[in-house]
Parts: sequence; C-alpha cells; structure tokens
Amino acid sequence: LQNEKTPIPTEVKLQFIQNLLDAGLHEIEVTSFVHPKWVPQLADAKELIAQLPASPNYKFSALVPNLKGLEAAQETHINRIALFTAASDAFTQKNINMSVSQSLEIFAEVAKLFRANEPNGYIRGYVSTIIECPITGPVEAKSVIQVVEKLLEIGVDEISLGETIGVAVPSQVKALAAELRPILDPSKTAWHFHDTRGTAIANVNAMLELDYRRFDSSAAGLGGCPYAPGAGGNLATEDLIYLCEKSGLKTGVDLQKLSLASLPILEHLQSTTGSAPRWSWCAWLTST
Amino acid sequence: LQNEKTPIPTEVKLQFIQNLLDAGLHEIEVTSFVHPKWVPQLADAKELIAQLPASPNYKFSALVPNLKGLEAAQETHINRIALFTAASDAFTQKNINMSVSQSLEIFAEVAKLFRANEPNGYIRGYVSTIIECPITGPVEAKSVIQVVEKLLEIGVDEISLGETIGVAVPSQVKALAAELRPILDPSKTAWHFHDTRGTAIANVNAMLELDYRRFDSSAAGLGGCPYAPGAGGNLATEDLIYLCEKSGLKTGVDLQKLSLASLPILEHLQSTTGSAPRWSWCAWLTST
Repeated sequence: LQNEKTPIPTEVKLQFIQNLLDAGLHEIEVTSFVHPKWVPQLADAKELIAQLPASPNYKFSALVPNLKGLEAAQETHINRIALFTAASDAFTQKNINMSVSQSLEIFAEVAKLFRANEPNGYIRGYVSTIIECPITGPVEAKSVIQVVEKLLEIGVDEISLGETIGVAVPSQVKALAAELRPILDPSKTAWHFHDTRGTAIANVNAMLELDYRRFDSSAAGLGGCPYAPGAGGNLATEDLIYLCEKSGLKTGVDLQKLSLASLPILEHLQSTTGSAPRWSWCAWLTST
Repeated sequence: LQNEKTPIPTEVKLQFIQNLLDAGLHEIEVTSFVHPKWVPQLADAKELIAQLPASPNYKFSALVPNLKGLEAAQETHINRIALFTAASDAFTQKNINMSVSQSLEIFAEVAKLFRANEPNGYIRGYVSTIIECPITGPVEAKSVIQVVEKLLEIGVDEISLGETIGVAVPSQVKALAAELRPILDPSKTAWHFHDTRGTAIANVNAMLELDYRRFDSSAAGLGGCPYAPGAGGNLATEDLIYLCEKSGLKTGVDLQKLSLASLPILEHLQSTTGSAPRWSWCAWLTST
C-alpha cells in the first residue's frame, strides 16, 4: 500500500487483512516502520499491529528500515521483521540513501538488537534488484551472491530475492538460481517478482520446477516500487495461487474468497481517486 | 478486432497493419470472411485486402469459416487461409453451429477447392479448446489428437493449437505437447494462448524450451473470443516479443515501434467508447 497516495483508514486495512486470512493466507507483511514523513500511508503501523487478530497460525511481519524503525517495532508485539537491502549501490542510494555495504552494517545492528529481545523472532532479508537495477541496468550474479552471503552471516531466517522492476525472463532467473543454490537452500529462499512485462508467472513456474516453494505476491497486484518508476505492480496473489493449484500444488487458499479479499481497498481507492482498478484484478473478479 | 463493437474504419485498420509491418511483423491474419451479419466489424474484408501493401516478405492470411467464405476470399488475391475447428463439440456447436466432425467435413471441402485454385497457397488449421472448453470443461488429449490427425490428412500446412479461454498452466501444455509431438512437427505447430489468468507467457516459455518457435499473439492484447465469455484477450505481441528477445531469440521485431503500433486502433476505440486501454498495453507504452 506504500505506493497509494490516497490515505487508507486503518479499519479498511484491517478488513483487508482479515479477508486475506479468511481466504487462507497466513503469512502477511502488514506494514512498515518507515518514517511517516516518507510514507504517510503507513503512519498507523502501531495502531494496525495492535488490532491484528491473534492465532498461532498467523505470521505477521513488518518492514524495519533502520534502528529508529526497530525502536518503534519493539513497542508493538510484532516478532517477525523484514530488513531491506539490494544488490545495486545506485538503488540503495536512491531508496534508503546509503550504499549496499552501509545498509548491511545497519542491517546487522538491527538484527542483533532484535534477536536480543526476540530470541524466537524471525528475520527476513530483502535483496532487491537481483537481475537489473532501474538506474544502472544489469546486475551481476556475484553482486547478489555477496549480499546473500553477508545476510547469511548476519543470521537471517529467510532471504527474499527481489526482481524489483519486472524485467527478467525465466532463463535469467534460472541462471541466477543455479549460482545461488550452493549457498542458499530453497527452504530459506523466497522469490519476489513484479509483473511489469508479463513474465512474473513464467519466472515463478521456472522456480517451482526447481523445487522452490516460497514466493512473495500482493493481493490484486497492488503495489509496485516507489523508487522504480514505470515498474508495474507486484505479482498478483490471485495469479500465483491459480498457477500453483492448477499445477497440482496445494496452497490452502480459497481462490474465490481471495479474489474478493481486496475489494475494501480497491473500492476505497476508486471512490477517492476515481482510478480504474487494475485490469488483471477485473479479470479475476468477473471470472469468479 | 472481431470482439470490438465500435466500427473501425478500413483506413485505421490499414494503418494498424502498416505499423505492425514497420515494426517487423510480417505474418498477419488481417481479417475473416465470416458473414457480415455475425461480425459487422469485418464486413470490409475485400476492400481491406485490396489495399494491403505488397511485398514478397509479407504473409497475409484471412479466416475462412465455410464455402461461402471461400468464395468471397477467392474474389481477392489472398493466398493464405485459416480454417477453424475445435477439440470440443459443445464449442463448435456454439461457435459455428455444427459438430467437430461436421466442421472437419466442410474444412476438407474448403481446403480441396482452395488448393485447386491456389496450388501454392497456404492453409492453417485452428484447433480451439485444446485444454478446456468454456462449456463442458476439461478436454482430453485424445480429442485433440484425433482432430490434428484429421487435419494432417486434409493436408494443412500448419496447425494452430488454441488454448481458447486462458486457463492452462505449463504442466498441462507440456503434457499435451508430449502426446502431440510424435504426430505433429514443431515446424508445423503454432501455439495460441490467451492471457486470462496470467499464464500465457509461462506457457510460451515452456514451449520455447521444447523448441517450438511459432506462436500466435495479438498487438496490445486486443481481442479475445466472442464465444468464450469471461476469457481475457489474446496474448499480447509486446509480451511475446519481449520474452523471446530477452531469452536470446532474435525476432526481427522492433519492440518500441511495436508498442506504438496499436495506437490508431486504441485511440479510435477510446474516442468512440471512452473505454480505458488495457492495462498491459499502458504498461508497455509508459515504459518505452
């Protein structure tokens, strides 16, 4: 939701989350402790987390960009955090105003402080721009490998590999996967694709064939990246679940419920901005 | 264009075709000799064909649904025709008001008459609903095989295998490809995917990996199927070319020119119906 200018009331976000849970999605990144000056949309992070439904099955996480974000997160009961870096200096510079190695230093410090308070907490590390940087172009596999090795040293529980701008095709993702496989187990790997060029599902399918089973997605394809102009939305969860179920992989998600889950957000966005919902979402809605 | 209710002037269609040729696409199905009562949009088939630019590099074809259509086609200089059938009786019944075997009888007769007049002509056979029928559901591979065998007996030059409603995932298409491979060479096979569920590019990629090189697509993802309600548009040519080029396969198509090629049609549709252009097309336009 960080990409949406229209303020979305906390109760609409909570309804959205509840709908996703009801559809069977139990791992949700619910917000970010980024400074409200940069992303006013997420200024209600604490209130939102305080009102989340509790269940041992639910795994909620929040993005923590820095030490200040960690302080705020620690005033809540969230015990899963996500930290952010990239494989391109130009990208981290524009996105978080520091180099990749500076971001990794902060990353290490945040992780250490978090673990001290939450010995059973869960840390996810995001590595963005794994194939291409929106500023400097193609990214070499060795840059990705270096960051992944550093994150493993820091002791993250999982690494999300982000193809941030949605330009990759399966042959590229396969080549990168082959290089990463010796150092990063599929059980610790999540792939994060954007659908700018229609290749996200093709990339997911290629990774499913290589026994990867963790993928990031966004209900109704909401989102994108505020620092990668022109990049399309995240891979739509609807498309992801459809591919998996139809390929014989059980997800536990009810696709019909899921395709209705985003209605509160989309109706709110449409009533306040008049913008048409995304085409892919319309297709899902009319088909169920 | 058969799906568009707004009449599109012949000169706009010609400009569209010229733009596609200029972008490097030299095989175009330009119209259909279906009765103008059913598809008024294509009532200008003869005028359109008469005004097509001539070049030994250009391969224009037209759909011929029946003997009456062939008569009309033979009053023009078109020497490539496409004939239509499906792997599901329920679908041909609704689409062309006859069973699959009835359609194959007419198909054989049309092909024979066409060959008599155009010994060097080219015949493409469409087999729709290769994976699922919008009326009766899953289609067995043996139904597809039977139709393909019959078409080869009739002597078609190429068979286009149509996943008409856009529901298939790569594992399904691969399974069908494995069954068809012994009787149908990749050089005679075109795959025809729709993008209703975001799986079209994944299916193309799976078939590229199996050395298939012929794919149907539609500029800007225009189209769909008038007899398969809810089905999304055809696979967008922009997405197809992008996948191929980025995967190291040379297409000879200029992607930037291509993404602008559909403007005359889309502007006409928007000015007359007010409908927003398709999302995927917007993404392409803003990215070039």
